[in-house]
Amino acid sequence: MEMDMNAQETKAGFFQRLKDFSSKLKDGVTKRIKNVQKFGKDDPRRIIHSMKVGVALTLVSLLYYVRPLYISFGVSGMWAILTVVVVFEFTVGGTLSKGLNRGFATLIAGALGVGAVHLARYFGHQGEPIILGILVFSLGAAATFSRFFPRIKQRYDYGALIFILTFSMVAVSGYRTDEILVMAYQRLFTILIGGTICILVSIFVCPVWAGEDLHKMIANNIKKLANYLEGFEGEYFPLSEKISKETNSCVREYKSILTSKGTEDTLANLARWEPGHGRFRLRHPWKKYLKIAGLVRQCAFHFEILNGYVLSNFKAPEEFKSKIQEPIATMSREAGEALKSIAKSIKTMSKDDTASVNAHIDNSKKAIKSLRIALKSSYPETEKDLLEIIPGVTMASILIEVVNCVEKISEAVEEFSSLAHFKENLDPNLSAEIGQHQLLHRGSVKPVLDGDHNEEEDNSSPHVLITIHDEHPPTTTGKNSLGAEKN
Amino acid sequence: MEMDMNAQETKAGFFQRLKDFSSKLKDGVTKRIKNVQKFGKDDPRRIIHSMKVGVALTLVSLLYYVRPLYISFGVSGMWAILTVVVVFEFTVGGTLSKGLNRGFATLIAGALGVGAVHLARYFGHQGEPIILGILVFSLGAAATFSRFFPRIKQRYDYGALIFILTFSMVAVSGYRTDEILVMAYQRLFTILIGGTICILVSIFVCPVWAGEDLHKMIANNIKKLANYLEGFEGEYFPLSEKISKETNSCVREYKSILTSKGTEDTLANLARWEPGHGRFRLRHPWKKYLKIAGLVRQCAFHFEILNGYVLSNFKAPEEFKSKIQEPIATMSREAGEALKSIAKSIKTMSKDDTASVNAHIDNSKKAIKSLRIALKSSYPETEKDLLEIIPGVTMASILIEVVNCVEKISEAVEEFSSLAHFKENLDPNLSAEIGQHQLLHRGSVKPVLDGDHNEEEDNSSPHVLITIHDEHPPTTTGKNSLGAEKN
Repeated sequence: MEMDMNAQETKAGFFQRLKDFSSKLKDGVTKRIKNVQKFGKDDPRRIIHSMKVGVALTLVSLLYYVRPLYISFGVSGMWAILTVVVVFEFTVGGTLSKGLNRGFATLIAGALGVGAVHLARYFGHQGEPIILGILVFSLGAAATFSRFFPRIKQRYDYGALIFILTFSMVAVSGYRTDEILVMAYQRLFTILIGGTICILVSIFVCPVWAGEDLHKMIANNIKKLANYLEGFEGEYFPLSEKISKETNSCVREYKSILTSKGTEDTLANLARWEPGHGRFRLRHPWKKYLKIAGLVRQCAFHFEILNGYVLSNFKAPEEFKSKIQEPIATMSREAGEALKSIAKSIKTMSKDDTASVNAHIDNSKKAIKSLRIALKSSYPETEKDLLEIIPGVTMASILIEVVNCVEKISEAVEEFSSLAHFKENLDPNLSAEIGQHQLLHRGSVKPVLDGDHNEEEDNSSPHVLITIHDEHPPTTTGKNSLGAEKN
Repeated sequence: MEMDMNAQETKAGFFQRLKDFSSKLKDGVTKRIKNVQKFGKDDPRRIIHSMKVGVALTLVSLLYYVRPLYISFGVSGMWAILTVVVVFEFTVGGTLSKGLNRGFATLIAGALGVGAVHLARYFGHQGEPIILGILVFSLGAAATFSRFFPRIKQRYDYGALIFILTFSMVAVSGYRTDEILVMAYQRLFTILIGGTICILVSIFVCPVWAGEDLHKMIANNIKKLANYLEGFEGEYFPLSEKISKETNSCVREYKSILTSKGTEDTLANLARWEPGHGRFRLRHPWKKYLKIAGLVRQCAFHFEILNGYVLSNFKAPEEFKSKIQEPIATMSREAGEALKSIAKSIKTMSKDDTASVNAHIDNSKKAIKSLRIALKSSYPETEKDLLEIIPGVTMASILIEVVNCVEKISEAVEEFSSLAHFKENLDPNLSAEIGQHQLLHRGSVKPVLDGDHNEEEDNSSPHVLITIHDEHPPTTTGKNSLGAEKN
């Protein structure tokens, strides 16, 4: 009786566990599917790219399925499949770079391989493999060594690989077959077919341009810097009512810039392989993006140090804090606005915002002056006070360096905008004044994060003022203007 | 006559130009050859690697040259050549990762491909290519999509590529040949031969371990930080006689750390594929290196900001400068010494230097206290003076953050040293004291850069002191101790 009960319980327990397991499995699978869906939705170009690879593969399979094609190429058709799989990259630049490298390397190495086989045949049946072995060893080693040179590695790494591959294969199989020329021709031709299909699908079906990605990335990175500066007051003076919870995640965005150099370099390198497209001409100054990116990263380094201060619960006497809060808030806000305008100008590829950028930078420089006055007025009364204000003073100095960084970014983008033929769509009334670099702007001081800034920028023109006495504003580039100038 | 003269002159000019050209060509070629030689000498492992690839290629060619082998494998031998060329990487980890990925992906995709061909045959001669096309499209697209997932991209990217390649080739060529099993078997077997040759040559002929490279890189990066701190006094107080021209290049070395994350991540990823070797066991904590590297980079960010101050000709009143010079010099020197000991302890994988590291950190913390006193005593007499000392104050605050960074690095390395089984070779007289974390050290204050520091470290034991009153030294981690502590 008892054993029966036990057996029944065990059975019930087993079914229960089975049920649990199946529901867990179901949950797990649903969760995973949702993850995959989310991943695809985050960047739908990933799904499109996968489809494109599928299409190219299906197209190239026709070399086998269609009888007349199979008769002409035979099993060499597999080189076309192989080419599609290894050449098709996410960006047009990547596909072009690999395709061209593969094509030319196959051509050169194939010719050399055929030559090597003919040369080796002079040495008789005994000598042939020895000569071929020496040639394969030495050319293989030399080409491998060449791949270490940074210049070759950057642009022709894949070509060198394919060179070794093709040369070895042609030279070695030439020992066993007399139809080496037919083989080389078929291989070259099928690779051309595969490569051409890749390049055509890559360019004409929803292309992903490395250049455009780089362009957007730089603009976004500048936007991230702007977000940090906008959230700056809220981070440092959390008692202020202007803080909003939503900004906190934006504020940390700059961290990705600290280590984005690799991606930028790769994109710039691939962009140089791409033909002119959309707003980008053939000889678009891709290398200049890296210069801007370097300055942007420099700015992000400063944020990282500033951020260390926030994390360490920056404390200062309330009186001192309230004195420096206003100029510091203006400085960071105006520098942030300048960066926003720069990002917008890059994104739209227009010079419309130059005036606004200069105005915001001038405003933040004025705020530096107010900060100097505020600091002077908070002259410490005791030795103890001096030590207490030091973190605040340090923060202020670093922020001044940030303003210098922003100015450098603005200069670099201005230089770049001429090279990249940004369109000028200036209001004719303003253009003359801007030509003389005398445009200043006093935007109405609005609280941080009050919504749509495009509106603010558009409304800013009525506030423009022209100063005569300030033709050469002090150049603070590369110099900490807080202490370097003597009052 | 005149024309004759002209002709002669032209002729002479032509020969002259020819001579010039040939001498220029000779110079150019000699220069280039010297460059290549220098490049090889910089890292002789590059030359050895090229030779190794040559050897592997020659070995694998035997599949063609040796008649019995050629009879068994036929033209499939070319898959072995192809495998050697694409799988052989500079590091053992790279070769293993690619070889294993290629082997397993070929196995799985080959089996699936054979299955797909058998399935398609049920649909008759008309339906077969359609079914095969649908399968190639969908599996190709799915595998391409999977390559976007960071986890797969990091470790199995090459496997996914080979999966698409093999599946497509087996499925498509299965339509035309009935010997598909033989083909799949030959392909798999030759790939195994090629992969095995690569892995054996890679491991047993002068191996280059990614793990060892990573280990050395981290130690070197810490050394670079130490070099900067050692040269710090000379950079900021160039009037001091201790400066030497040679240090200047060392001082800038830290810049490479700012953007070394990509290399570190790659090496750590490859190191996980490597078997235990030398001082590294199989489950060596490779990921911990990345944690240390992150802290090292954080420290380098601070240097980059400090460096901005040097570039901007840091100026301060002489009196103020002379007051802060001594504590700042001690702080940077002691922090530098601590980093040197940490680097040495990583390099030798021993815990011998823990005492010395802690002692140096304690010394630099003491220097922070002296700095606070020096700052208090340089209490500005006028408002103007306050502004003048700001850059110096900022520099001092950042340097204090650097000391905090160094402490964090030391803690991370200590944690790592237990995980990585660093050997303990302590002087038995000292070990008991160190166990209580009470060891302090007052090294004789020597001028910066006075030669061999190993000697200094070895001589330091007689100066060890034990303090009783300071059991819990103030933890300044993540906090700017200059202003946070109230005096």
